[in-house]
Amino acid sequence: MKVQGKHYRTIWPGADGASVEIIDQTRLPHEFVTLRLCRVDDAVRAIQTMQVRGAPLIGATAAYGLWLALRADPGDDTLARAYQILLATRPTAINLRWALDRVRARVRPLPPKERAAAAFVEAGVICDDDVATCRAIGEHGLKIFQQIASKKGTVEVLTHCNAGWLACVDWGTALAPIYMGHDAGLGVHVWVDETRPRNQGASLTAWELGRHGISHTVIADNVGGHLMQHGRVDLCIVGTDRTTARGDVCNKIGTYLKALAAHDNRVPFYVALPHSTIDWTVQDGVAEIPIEERAGHELTRITGRDDDGGITTVQIVPDGTPAANFAFDVTPARLVTGLITERGLCQASEDGLLSLYPERRGKAA
Amino acid sequence: MKVQGKHYRTIWPGADGASVEIIDQTRLPHEFVTLRLCRVDDAVRAIQTMQVRGAPLIGATAAYGLWLALRADPGDDTLARAYQILLATRPTAINLRWALDRVRARVRPLPPKERAAAAFVEAGVICDDDVATCRAIGEHGLKIFQQIASKKGTVEVLTHCNAGWLACVDWGTALAPIYMGHDAGLGVHVWVDETRPRNQGASLTAWELGRHGISHTVIADNVGGHLMQHGRVDLCIVGTDRTTARGDVCNKIGTYLKALAAHDNRVPFYVALPHSTIDWTVQDGVAEIPIEERAGHELTRITGRDDDGGITTVQIVPDGTPAANFAFDVTPARLVTGLITERGLCQASEDGLLSLYPERRGKAA
Repeated sequence: MKVQGKHYRTIWPGADGASVEIIDQTRLPHEFVTLRLCRVDDAVRAIQTMQVRGAPLIGATAAYGLWLALRADPGDDTLARAYQILLATRPTAINLRWALDRVRARVRPLPPKERAAAAFVEAGVICDDDVATCRAIGEHGLKIFQQIASKKGTVEVLTHCNAGWLACVDWGTALAPIYMGHDAGLGVHVWVDETRPRNQGASLTAWELGRHGISHTVIADNVGGHLMQHGRVDLCIVGTDRTTARGDVCNKIGTYLKALAAHDNRVPFYVALPHSTIDWTVQDGVAEIPIEERAGHELTRITGRDDDGGITTVQIVPDGTPAANFAFDVTPARLVTGLITERGLCQASEDGLLSLYPERRGKAA
Repeated sequence: MKVQGKHYRTIWPGADGASVEIIDQTRLPHEFVTLRLCRVDDAVRAIQTMQVRGAPLIGATAAYGLWLALRADPGDDTLARAYQILLATRPTAINLRWALDRVRARVRPLPPKERAAAAFVEAGVICDDDVATCRAIGEHGLKIFQQIASKKGTVEVLTHCNAGWLACVDWGTALAPIYMGHDAGLGVHVWVDETRPRNQGASLTAWELGRHGISHTVIADNVGGHLMQHGRVDLCIVGTDRTTARGDVCNKIGTYLKALAAHDNRVPFYVALPHSTIDWTVQDGVAEIPIEERAGHELTRITGRDDDGGITTVQIVPDGTPAANFAFDVTPARLVTGLITERGLCQASEDGLLSLYPERRGKAA
């Protein structure tokens, strides 16, 4: 999407043919900085420190990370080692494994000297596929927005975290229908959950929407239930880091609370996802999906811009206060109104998913 | 409760006989600073800027505010004007009106020269009553903790915002049973909701509990649902700023989301309250209680201690981002397991409340 009048993706091959470039998302919203990743370790660090984040972008970055590793050494040992260290960067998002598996499957049968080039091509295809996927999600989701808009004026939508173009390669998942609705001339206003502890809503979603000129209001994560009680939300739409075969949705911590509020107030709650987030091997998300625990200082220390324009970190708790930082939670399928995938809309259930992905029917999980 | 080995209340008469002193809660947790309020305007500012906060403490401060006004001028006009400006400081908490009504009713029949002294006495009685009330709430709530502790080891309790001694005059409401449980030798661990946007959990509850040596962990407001899904919360206990005659509970924004999660996971959800928060004139909390909207910068600008030890405020959103800041929400009675008042435990319903307050039975609201 556009930044300062220029079109950007979140990840692109460097002009030197030996690197991949990203937007350093830890510097947003106050600074727009791009970074060059030259080695697999750079890709590992970019994922771990959340310079890139969002399930699709994590996958794309890992794919290019394999390429960077194979450029340095295309041997089997390096391939295996790079696969493992990239896979270990984040435990929850399933796209990571999906993208790594896809590149590895493509290059492993090849002679070593052909592997780097093939990995580069495959990573590029993953990126292009993601863009096409997100565009299709946007087009399917747009129909929901058009239905609501036909009955009232501005469509009031609540989203949690950042499932926009910054989380993907372009367009986004949850935000794609919002961009398309806006571009199609529908009135759209977005309630943006701040999304503690890392504030991806306040920093990234607000930044994205603002750059595109979409009306939005940042709110504390605590507010959505109140808004829904008072009829001020027409629908919720979020992304997902992993979707189970029966439609449970693992997404940014706090998603479950919003889904409960939506259910309690009969507000439709949609989840937008590329097929690559579906983990067909998992049924019960709450019981089976490992939830990443990150460092407590992400909660207790907050970074922003001080009044002198510098980037400063402040501590908000008494010294020595213990903090726990669970990064994701699982929203049971029963609370999800529908899944919006690149193939269309379906119920959040095994039958629903199989109706869109019939090639999975009868396959062993 | 104790601070640096010395017993403090949150509000007390100044030694000069002409002022009232408070703890400046906007400076916690990084600085412990007391302030002297000498004029009614000081009390107004203390409430508006949340140097004092918490429904019971707001009431106590307003009561002393009337005294300060009457010290300067005991005439009818001053009484009426001071009542109005104090009442206008915060719109949601019902104790504010209750305390002001109580002092006004006490002094209005008196000759002007006797009014200030009577107001001072009445404000002191309000404070002493609040301490006794909170102690009684703690004793009733303790039984719930003892029941849970008899079946398992450490009692895991989740609380939202600050309903501790800092919100009252001493002891607290929701935290009173926790203090008593700890003091009685029960194992207690508290999950402390950060409580955005003003971070009263991260700053005040964590500070209180830490000073008293109670095991606690600060979490983002988004986390509670995940913890409850995984059986890591035995009960929730929160305070309230206004309780309706049928048991709806208006409390810090986000309380409703935790109540939904508790209900979905069969975790008991208790609300601790002094009778002064009950608004017998209101039935349907969602429809009838006005919800304060505060300035958006409370959300978008976060204050804490920087690495040089200074107190710094940082902006976490892009420049010009709109923000909405609703301070409270309403938890419907159907989601509340029980109300803990100074008279005991009851169901969150009209019948439940009338069983504890039979003198209200048959009275017109």
